[in-house]
Amino acid sequence: MEKLECIFCKKKYPLDVFSLFCSDCGEPLLVSGLKKKRAFYFKEESAVRIFKDFLPLSKIEARCGLGEGDTPLTPLFRLRQKFNLPSLYAKNETVNPTASFKDRGSVVAVQKAISLGVKKIGTISTGNMAGSTAAYAAKAGLKSFIFVKEDTSKEKILSAAIYGPVLIKVKGDYGLLFRKSFEIGRKHGIYFMNSVDPFRIEGYKVTGFEIFFQLDARLPQYIFVPVSAGGHLIGLMRAFLDLRQESLIKELPTFVAVQARGCSPLARAFAREKTKFARFPNPYTIAHAISNPNPPGGNIVLKMIRENQGLIISVSDTEIMRAQKLLAEAEGIFCDPASATTLAGLLQFSKINKLKNHDKIVLIITGSGLKNLEDLRSAKIHYHNVSLKSLEKKMENVLF
Amino acid sequence: MEKLECIFCKKKYPLDVFSLFCSDCGEPLLVSGLKKKRAFYFKEESAVRIFKDFLPLSKIEARCGLGEGDTPLTPLFRLRQKFNLPSLYAKNETVNPTASFKDRGSVVAVQKAISLGVKKIGTISTGNMAGSTAAYAAKAGLKSFIFVKEDTSKEKILSAAIYGPVLIKVKGDYGLLFRKSFEIGRKHGIYFMNSVDPFRIEGYKVTGFEIFFQLDARLPQYIFVPVSAGGHLIGLMRAFLDLRQESLIKELPTFVAVQARGCSPLARAFAREKTKFARFPNPYTIAHAISNPNPPGGNIVLKMIRENQGLIISVSDTEIMRAQKLLAEAEGIFCDPASATTLAGLLQFSKINKLKNHDKIVLIITGSGLKNLEDLRSAKIHYHNVSLKSLEKKMENVLF
Repeated sequence: MEKLECIFCKKKYPLDVFSLFCSDCGEPLLVSGLKKKRAFYFKEESAVRIFKDFLPLSKIEARCGLGEGDTPLTPLFRLRQKFNLPSLYAKNETVNPTASFKDRGSVVAVQKAISLGVKKIGTISTGNMAGSTAAYAAKAGLKSFIFVKEDTSKEKILSAAIYGPVLIKVKGDYGLLFRKSFEIGRKHGIYFMNSVDPFRIEGYKVTGFEIFFQLDARLPQYIFVPVSAGGHLIGLMRAFLDLRQESLIKELPTFVAVQARGCSPLARAFAREKTKFARFPNPYTIAHAISNPNPPGGNIVLKMIRENQGLIISVSDTEIMRAQKLLAEAEGIFCDPASATTLAGLLQFSKINKLKNHDKIVLIITGSGLKNLEDLRSAKIHYHNVSLKSLEKKMENVLF
Repeated sequence: MEKLECIFCKKKYPLDVFSLFCSDCGEPLLVSGLKKKRAFYFKEESAVRIFKDFLPLSKIEARCGLGEGDTPLTPLFRLRQKFNLPSLYAKNETVNPTASFKDRGSVVAVQKAISLGVKKIGTISTGNMAGSTAAYAAKAGLKSFIFVKEDTSKEKILSAAIYGPVLIKVKGDYGLLFRKSFEIGRKHGIYFMNSVDPFRIEGYKVTGFEIFFQLDARLPQYIFVPVSAGGHLIGLMRAFLDLRQESLIKELPTFVAVQARGCSPLARAFAREKTKFARFPNPYTIAHAISNPNPPGGNIVLKMIRENQGLIISVSDTEIMRAQKLLAEAEGIFCDPASATTLAGLLQFSKINKLKNHDKIVLIITGSGLKNLEDLRSAKIHYHNVSLKSLEKKMENVLF
């Protein structure tokens, strides 16, 4: 039986899905201890199954999976050329069953819920996690309770509500709601698998393993990843720590965590060389999916980034919107603004830092633009309106 | 060099992407002739590459791919149980780069365009194909021209326009626009890869190959697939014809083509035992993606379905909306109404026909619900609104 651990206090805890934070320092607990015998299997059906030795699951139930993971690592030839960059790849997490990376976490946490006999699960979310959790609950036949922020867009609500959860839009401070959800969970036996859930985080490791093997067991020099609550980045870093432990690599990639400047508590703490972040005042950014002024995994991120020579930077909404258009127009990838921070971050980074010709750079594209179409309406999206009769003339017009 | 062929007149044509219909009977041309030496390769990166011997491409350019295909074949345990059905699977094509099956066609047609030195491509579309074609054009660095119907939703337009095509909304008859597009294409050197493009159709074969191998080289007894223009179904059937030619199977699955009753020219022709369909008057259905009153591949579909003991049925909008909710709530799959016709069709079919215990049934889920959120607003989507303070009380409420 695996244990949970606070990486600050080094205190270990028995598994209790209703109590996932350190009782001393309040930081999120992570899964501790590796299985003794483990190997990488190939040619099996699901990504979770391929890497099961590296996950805190004693068995994988087929009835919980939706075919998550095994996402493309797509070379970005045209952006590379345009900006004179080394080898550049997008790890395209939009190609997941609910169109975001969250599915990788949901599948592991839901498997855990089932193995523990828990019948009710929940989450609090600004959007993507709501849909993912509700979908995996539906698939597994669990009842789900989804709390969303007051300002969550109608699109995000619909794309979660379709799965039939109990969906509650809650007015009030998101940080307080985060804590409240665990309280309600304990009281009513609902396993709240929120952003920094230790099993979710283990699920995100699979992305890191895939990147490594998709590059023919070579290390990328840089991984750019949007950071909000912190869970995703923590999982990705843990993947490469696992690979090092297995002696498959000697060093880690340089992780560049990117935040939206309008909500960048970790970039700010990092720039000021703090070990703990402070709540970010008056957050405002178009990158809603990563707008968390008080990220629960923030201090773990600061610690892991510092220990592994990573960076935390921030980009403006203007840079984000430009990067979103660039990814679509040059590479055919339509991502949400949060994902576009990775390209924006790289373009900023490459102006200041000398990249080497043989470097390999991976951008983690975390979610689809399809759940944020409302935001696009204000962007410069052009199209023409004609009758069939005047189509020929319009064509002459646009062609010459 | 492969040829194109009219399967009605048996007339062969040299390849000309600006002339893709039979000059005698006007039916769409299909790719003719197989490569002599071919094999199924495994463990390669992309689905198109794995099955390249079965595609009319002499080489696969990495710069054209977005990681399409290799989609999940997900067992639907809960629907199976609920409706007392045999083994049931969803082939989940929503997990493609632009969230629909169209990407499998686009990648092959775009590869073909590049190998022919064509720099401009186009399509006409009610939505999904617009986004897919624009994305693959962007990826390959081709200029694209997208004509959409007057009543195309803002969501579908945005999700295509983001890739930077020349997008023109055209008022007028869609059938006329279909023909007009080829005329414009010939005049201006734009390869219009529309719904029944022969290379698109070859791309759809890969879905059939995947299903066969995902079932451990066993044949499903039934494949339910939405049918509109006809290209997708034709491709899927050709996949199993290829497998039979390779002696991997002896017989074909029973293909059940499903149309929305409000626009069902082929189901009507099939019921009346006609070999040619008639234009469907006053089409109206919530399944916009398959609302084509005058499907260009319709007669080929009628011929192939008849020759291979398939069926064409139709389902009502009420059945479609119920099936869409069922797929989301019971199985965690959020598809568009067009895709939901497959489950609606199966539920209708299984009431009349005796399914056997050992039967395997595959539903082809063709597109994501995320591009049709507007349609959901009128559906019964429930959620609650509370303040943080009254959340506990609301929870008691929803729990007991």
